[in-house]
Amino acid sequence: MCDTCGCHALGKEGGSSGFTVDVHRSLLEANRKQAEGNRLHLERLGATALNLISSPGSGKTTLLEHTADALMPGFSMGVIEGDIETERDAERIRKKGIPAVQLTTGGACHLDAPLVHQGIHRLVEHAGRDNFDFVFIENVGNLVCPSTFDLGEHRRIVLVSVPEGSDKPAKYPATFERADLFLITKTDLLPYFDFSLAEARKEALEVNPDLEIIELSAVSGQGMADWIAWLRNLRN
Amino acid sequence: MCDTCGCHALGKEGGSSGFTVDVHRSLLEANRKQAEGNRLHLERLGATALNLISSPGSGKTTLLEHTADALMPGFSMGVIEGDIETERDAERIRKKGIPAVQLTTGGACHLDAPLVHQGIHRLVEHAGRDNFDFVFIENVGNLVCPSTFDLGEHRRIVLVSVPEGSDKPAKYPATFERADLFLITKTDLLPYFDFSLAEARKEALEVNPDLEIIELSAVSGQGMADWIAWLRNLRN
Repeated sequence: MCDTCGCHALGKEGGSSGFTVDVHRSLLEANRKQAEGNRLHLERLGATALNLISSPGSGKTTLLEHTADALMPGFSMGVIEGDIETERDAERIRKKGIPAVQLTTGGACHLDAPLVHQGIHRLVEHAGRDNFDFVFIENVGNLVCPSTFDLGEHRRIVLVSVPEGSDKPAKYPATFERADLFLITKTDLLPYFDFSLAEARKEALEVNPDLEIIELSAVSGQGMADWIAWLRNLRN
Repeated sequence: MCDTCGCHALGKEGGSSGFTVDVHRSLLEANRKQAEGNRLHLERLGATALNLISSPGSGKTTLLEHTADALMPGFSMGVIEGDIETERDAERIRKKGIPAVQLTTGGACHLDAPLVHQGIHRLVEHAGRDNFDFVFIENVGNLVCPSTFDLGEHRRIVLVSVPEGSDKPAKYPATFERADLFLITKTDLLPYFDFSLAEARKEALEVNPDLEIIELSAVSGQGMADWIAWLRNLRN
């Protein structure tokens, strides 16, 4: 484990004292226990919970806006937004008529299970009801650190947008290793970027052969039906 | 400070024990001392060192490729590349005839000063010389965690590319607060994205009134002259 962060792996060229490893181990163990509690809590609400992880600006909030249009009114959803600062993403989601609460970490680079537990309580209070089909948890924009922290989700989704480049699965393997679904977003931009779908798919599957992969563009609508079908399938 | 990471701030809604804060404080203090050592080391090489921080896929490596074309042969440069996995970025830079070494963190979300110290030694060995005008340090793709760690650089540069969105300075204020220069990259894509240069500039300057800002596209060349002039001015 990284000396200075809860990240999974020790830097190959770095060092680590047993002392700090013990501290992090106990923090991660506390997180794991709270995550199990969150999962039970979410199941009591009837919810399937999804943890969305990506770099800043990969289109998580835009995807949720368009997902709301496609899922409602057949399914009920709620959103827990994570950001370092600002309430903007929750405001965007609320404009779509979806209950949404904002968690601001005040500097920290990822959501953790205790913070999400507060988010679940605030979401129920804000929505004025205690059942949801889907609870989406939009993590802090960071392709690295959130992958270490179980939040109590049922499925984990990693997003990479076309402008970021197709080399991301090879460069950030731990994030892909622990994901259930890989969304390649902003595919309407493929004509303008040197992004190889074949490379992204191949290298992601090398890291995680069980990974499901969907290509989509929330703006053009391409692939959105596959994404919505994937979500609906979780409720069957 | 974040309990599970060396990040600067404690989550507003989180908790922190004095015990773990002490551990992190001592790690950051060790990093600070090594960073001072790196700065002296780099100055003995005659180098101005620049720490480039951004999300994955903001165009750091592409910018360095084009910077090499514009700076050489008048100035000498070397590059220390940081990534979690893969040697790809250093290979790209070496193809431009620039000495480059790759640091792989093996999972950790940022470079730290001890790792960069190894990078300086490896760069000198690889280049077969002990003087450089510029040493560029390309940090791990992450807009959050690298901002906490002084690497021994002389200037810190934060990049946001147009596809990421103009809300990033407000959402990631600590990174902008500690930067000297803000590069808005991939401006050739402005016609295709809802990116407000005015919003990005205004909110970045609210966080850091002394921040310099340059808009550029390495691909179209727009703004590259301003960036090269900014670099040359560091050597006057």
